[in-house]
Amino acid sequence: MSEAEIVDGPVLIVGTGLIGTSIGLALRRAGVEVLLEDATPSVLQEAIYRGAGSMADGSRVPQLVVVAVPPDAASGELARVAQVFPEATITDVTSVKGLIVDEAIEAGADAHRLIGGHPMAGREISGPEAARADLFDDRLWILTPTGHESEGHLARVRRLVATCGAQVLEMDPAEHDAAVALVSHVPQVVASALAAALVDEPADRIRIAGAGLIDTTRIAGSDPQLWTQILRANAGPVSGVLAEVTGRLQQVLDALAPGPPPQGSQQRPEGQHIAPVTEVLDDGRQGHARLPGKHGATSVRYAIVPVLVEDKPGELARLFVAAGDLGVNLEDVRIEHVLGRPSGLVDLFVRPDVLEILVQGLTEAGFDVRA
Amino acid sequence: MSEAEIVDGPVLIVGTGLIGTSIGLALRRAGVEVLLEDATPSVLQEAIYRGAGSMADGSRVPQLVVVAVPPDAASGELARVAQVFPEATITDVTSVKGLIVDEAIEAGADAHRLIGGHPMAGREISGPEAARADLFDDRLWILTPTGHESEGHLARVRRLVATCGAQVLEMDPAEHDAAVALVSHVPQVVASALAAALVDEPADRIRIAGAGLIDTTRIAGSDPQLWTQILRANAGPVSGVLAEVTGRLQQVLDALAPGPPPQGSQQRPEGQHIAPVTEVLDDGRQGHARLPGKHGATSVRYAIVPVLVEDKPGELARLFVAAGDLGVNLEDVRIEHVLGRPSGLVDLFVRPDVLEILVQGLTEAGFDVRA
Repeated sequence: MSEAEIVDGPVLIVGTGLIGTSIGLALRRAGVEVLLEDATPSVLQEAIYRGAGSMADGSRVPQLVVVAVPPDAASGELARVAQVFPEATITDVTSVKGLIVDEAIEAGADAHRLIGGHPMAGREISGPEAARADLFDDRLWILTPTGHESEGHLARVRRLVATCGAQVLEMDPAEHDAAVALVSHVPQVVASALAAALVDEPADRIRIAGAGLIDTTRIAGSDPQLWTQILRANAGPVSGVLAEVTGRLQQVLDALAPGPPPQGSQQRPEGQHIAPVTEVLDDGRQGHARLPGKHGATSVRYAIVPVLVEDKPGELARLFVAAGDLGVNLEDVRIEHVLGRPSGLVDLFVRPDVLEILVQGLTEAGFDVRA
Repeated sequence: MSEAEIVDGPVLIVGTGLIGTSIGLALRRAGVEVLLEDATPSVLQEAIYRGAGSMADGSRVPQLVVVAVPPDAASGELARVAQVFPEATITDVTSVKGLIVDEAIEAGADAHRLIGGHPMAGREISGPEAARADLFDDRLWILTPTGHESEGHLARVRRLVATCGAQVLEMDPAEHDAAVALVSHVPQVVASALAAALVDEPADRIRIAGAGLIDTTRIAGSDPQLWTQILRANAGPVSGVLAEVTGRLQQVLDALAPGPPPQGSQQRPEGQHIAPVTEVLDDGRQGHARLPGKHGATSVRYAIVPVLVEDKPGELARLFVAAGDLGVNLEDVRIEHVLGRPSGLVDLFVRPDVLEILVQGLTEAGFDVRA
């Protein structure tokens, strides 16, 4: 990073949870002066102890204030810091933008120096203990300028993002809220509603669950209080997408209902009534194909080489050394799971152009390649 | 495996897709004679070419017939083979049990020699090309005796399962169907309905999708025709669970709806109306905690050690060698993803009792451990 891309300090961070503390660590990594503030003294102390910055004691005036508090408190804090620091650039990290920024301006924040932000990074755990200086490296960080801000303030927030190692993506606030409703907020609700069906079921039924249910409900472990605030703040866009998903589930329910008597005595719905079910599955497959990266679309972009290894220390190492010796970079690794336990089957993800080298090389080295 | 556990041949497999061909390969691995049959000559040839058995030409009478055809055809095939081979034990691999077995018996199959089966194994790809001899190793294979079968026939199907390397789990047919509706069929519908919402959305919105949406919709890539048949055959149990999930989504929708005027002018729903949303999220977290294995509950049973490595050949190997040198068995490995691409952050999953050894050892070896 060139000197010109580093944000000018001091930067005041209000709220030292996972995101606030990680921003502090990322800025300190670049040598930027960071001041920290949190309503809970022990949380603030933890962030300071981890090296995210020093306590804001009022002796230094920040150039930039980052509000990193939960959605219910965000607009109030934005308005408050705008009043306390009448010259500072102000931004936030809330996962909802339109309502938060509107409320902040209504409450007195100046539109010309307030730029909404949303770093697309997080972890399954929260608090300053989980913070990492590299949390934002190569991640997207959405900014939502409204056209009312001045160029100098916007440029400063862009430098904040660059200093944290992230890439700026600028979006209209309403467009941002529609996008996160689709890719983040509604998936959270759907995963939670599905996992909620497990609460009262006998353990013997849950016991046979495989990777399908486990992946589908992975994010259901998230913090209910935080997510309630997010959903409440983005109620409109979330309702739109959620109504569509719920409508499709109702379509499947209707198609699976037994027909009127005498067909009602038949347990299997008649063939001609089942088409709406196929339609939802077809559309789902098409929608799935539009997704970027990881194991879904990854299987298109990367070739997969399954190798069976013994489940003992050093075996994975032997495999990876062999791949390294062949000059092959492993893009991803997945260990297949059996009955909730890892099995000895390891999927190696590589670029298609090195597939042959890897398969041949591993086979010659005596590995049990299941290509 | 002792000689007594190996199933007596010949075994006839009707339908040589992924599951049928994999059963053939597993039986051949144990030296069992296998006869193969498929309505599509090219599919049958592929299975034979892969070594799953020889073509059934009528010259040999099977001891056991395994029907491995799609759900719509299963009961008809079970009744047909029961007539053709009046002494043979008969089983199937259909993911729905109650209706299929009932229909087969109604159509003339003898209840005393028909035992329903469902191996809990599969792959994201289908056909004999995807078959593997080890597909069932250490997997569950559910059998659903009804009490009408004779002990000798049941014992033979148990030996089939053991010969394929799987573990028998016996369940009541209706209980099986309720369980798979919960852990497999409804998750499929939910993942598909969610992914279907992506079909008509602008690419710019989908572009910001992260691991949450990708995991939640992973199984939406499945075969719509096959899944329509499964859902149709298990319509009752699926409807029950699906109605519950849909009801919870409706509960969230209702809570997110704007209140009556003048509250209707407020974009953010009032705090007192939001409790039903928190309830769904809370229940979802509780349900999620009941799930076995993989990364969800794994994080409870295993300790996670994040290590930052360079993205180049040999780097993962160096890390794994170091872990092996410490005598630590890696239970699982996860490479963190950034914007759909793998990052340099690798999570090592280990038993908690070796956590300290690993963290200390890797740190001393110069690794960038982010514990």
